[in-house]
Amino acid sequence: MNFGINLSFAVKRWPEPPVWARFVRETLKLSRIQFTYDLIDPWSPEPMRRSMAGEVRKAARDWDIVIESAFSGLANYCYDGLLHPTPDGRSISMEWWKRAIELAAEVGAEASGGPLGGMSVTDAASPNRREQLYQGLLDSVEELSRVAAAAGLKRFLVECTPLAREVPFTVAQARKLISDLEGRCQIPVLLLVDVGHALYQPLYGPQANMKEWLSGLGRLIGAFHLQNTDFQSDSHWGWPDRRGLFDVGGFAQEVRNAGLEEVPAHLELIYPFELDDETVRKSVESSVLHCRRMYCGENLP
Amino acid sequence: MNFGINLSFAVKRWPEPPVWARFVRETLKLSRIQFTYDLIDPWSPEPMRRSMAGEVRKAARDWDIVIESAFSGLANYCYDGLLHPTPDGRSISMEWWKRAIELAAEVGAEASGGPLGGMSVTDAASPNRREQLYQGLLDSVEELSRVAAAAGLKRFLVECTPLAREVPFTVAQARKLISDLEGRCQIPVLLLVDVGHALYQPLYGPQANMKEWLSGLGRLIGAFHLQNTDFQSDSHWGWPDRRGLFDVGGFAQEVRNAGLEEVPAHLELIYPFELDDETVRKSVESSVLHCRRMYCGENLP
Repeated sequence: MNFGINLSFAVKRWPEPPVWARFVRETLKLSRIQFTYDLIDPWSPEPMRRSMAGEVRKAARDWDIVIESAFSGLANYCYDGLLHPTPDGRSISMEWWKRAIELAAEVGAEASGGPLGGMSVTDAASPNRREQLYQGLLDSVEELSRVAAAAGLKRFLVECTPLAREVPFTVAQARKLISDLEGRCQIPVLLLVDVGHALYQPLYGPQANMKEWLSGLGRLIGAFHLQNTDFQSDSHWGWPDRRGLFDVGGFAQEVRNAGLEEVPAHLELIYPFELDDETVRKSVESSVLHCRRMYCGENLP
Repeated sequence: MNFGINLSFAVKRWPEPPVWARFVRETLKLSRIQFTYDLIDPWSPEPMRRSMAGEVRKAARDWDIVIESAFSGLANYCYDGLLHPTPDGRSISMEWWKRAIELAAEVGAEASGGPLGGMSVTDAASPNRREQLYQGLLDSVEELSRVAAAAGLKRFLVECTPLAREVPFTVAQARKLISDLEGRCQIPVLLLVDVGHALYQPLYGPQANMKEWLSGLGRLIGAFHLQNTDFQSDSHWGWPDRRGLFDVGGFAQEVRNAGLEEVPAHLELIYPFELDDETVRKSVESSVLHCRRMYCGENLP
C-alpha cells in the first residue's frame, strides 16, 4: 500500500520545514507526504515564496521524503474558486492556481490539485448557470493542465467534495468531468477521493459506501485522503477517536480488491486551531500507527 | 445595544453582494455588518479586487447598511501571520495586511482587523524568541496603523484568541499590548473580544467569565464577536443549538453594567462547508432573532 500524510497536521504548529520533516521521518516513520498550501500561501510575493519553497525542498531532500503532491488546504477552500459567480472572481482563482502550480514545482512535488470551487446558492439553483459554469470549469482545468505541464508536474488532481454546489460531488459527475476533459489536457487529470467526503451520509444517504466509488472510478483515482469520520460531517479526525466510525482496515481490503494498492493515500488530519499542541501531537502519532497497522498491514508492536 | 452580523455566514453560499445585502436588511432586519476577508481575498490582483470591492460598497449603499469593519476570516487564520517563524513569512503577512486595509477602505468600512498571528510550537517554547517576536509584532502594528490612517480608517482591531501561542490571549497580555503600543500608532488600536474565545475552558479553566474581560479591558474593547458555544471549543454555533450553553442575555446585562452598550457586537456564525444551505439559512435567521431578543432586548413576537 502507498501510504503518506498530508501536512495539514503541521499547520500553525510546526511550520518550519526541518521540524515537520524530522517528525515525519523519525517519529511517524513515513517517507511520503502531501504538501499543503496552508503552509505556504501561493499568493506570497517573490522572492519570499521561492525562498520558502526552497526550504521545503531542502528539508524533504535532507530527510529523504518524497512530496507526492502539493494540495489545497483550508485557506483556499474558503473561497468560491473556479466556480465563483463573477468572471473577476474566477480570474482571481485562476491566478491563484497558476501560482499554486508553480509553488508545487518549486517544492519538488510531482503533482498539484485540490477542490476546484463551489457555486453560489443562487447559481446552483439555475440549470443554465450550472451548465455555463461547468463549461467554464472545463476550460479552466484544460488551461491549468498546460500550466502544470510547463512547470514539469506529472498530474493534476481534482478533489471530489460532499457538496452539491461543487464539482464533482458524485461518482457519475466525476466520471463525466474526466470524460469531458478527454483529449484536452496536457497531463493526466485524475480524481482525489476523500473517504470522509465520499461517505457523508446527509448528502449520499446511509447506504453510501467506498466500493461504489472504487468500482465507479477505478483508475481515474489519482489519490485518496484518509480520515476518521462519523459519516455525519467532513470530520478529519484521527484514531483513536470515540466519535469516529471509519474502518480503515476494511477500506484497505476494498482498495486491494479494486487493484488500487499503488494509489497514494494520505492521512489528512484537521484539528481545531485552539486544541492544545500535545494532544494534537499524540493524536497524529497514534493515527499514523493505526493506519500503518490497519491500512498498510504492518506488523507493529 | 450596537448589534450587527459578520458576513461569515454568507461565505461560499451567498457571496453576491446584492444577495447578502438584501438578506441582511430584509430578512434579518439588520443595518450594521462586519465584512469578512473570506468573501474577497485581499491578495486578489487589481483591477479585480477594486471592482469586487466596489460591488460591496454599492450593495451596502443600496441597502443602507453600515460596514463597521472588514475583518480576517478563516482563510487568513490558517497562516502564522505576523508571528511566522521567518522574516519572509512575516513580510508576506505584512503585505497581506496592507492589502486588507486597502480593501477595507475600498468597501467603505470604518475599521479593519483580525487575529495578528501565531507562533510555532518551537518558537513559543523559547522565552527569548517569544520576546523577539513580540517586539516585532509591536513594530508591525505600528506600521499597519500608519497604513490604516493613510487609507482613511478610523481604528484597527486586534482580536484576542484562545491560544497561548498567539498574541494577545489573556486580559493581562491584551492590556500590555495596548499599553506597549501607546503613543506609537496613528489611529486607535482596540481589542476585539470574542465571547467563545474568552470563555474557552480548556485554556482558561472552568471559572472563566466575561465580567473579568469586560472589567479588565473596558474602553480598550473596540468590538465583540458573539457566538453560541459549549466552552470546550471555539464553536461559532447559533441558536437554538442543543450543544450550546452561552447565555447572550446575561452577557448583554454585563455589557450594560460595564457601560459598553455602544461597542459593536457582531454575531459570527461558522457552519461546516458541507452543511446543507437551507439548514444554514434557518439557523442564521433564528440566531439573529435570538440575539435581537436577548442581546438587544427587542420585544419581538
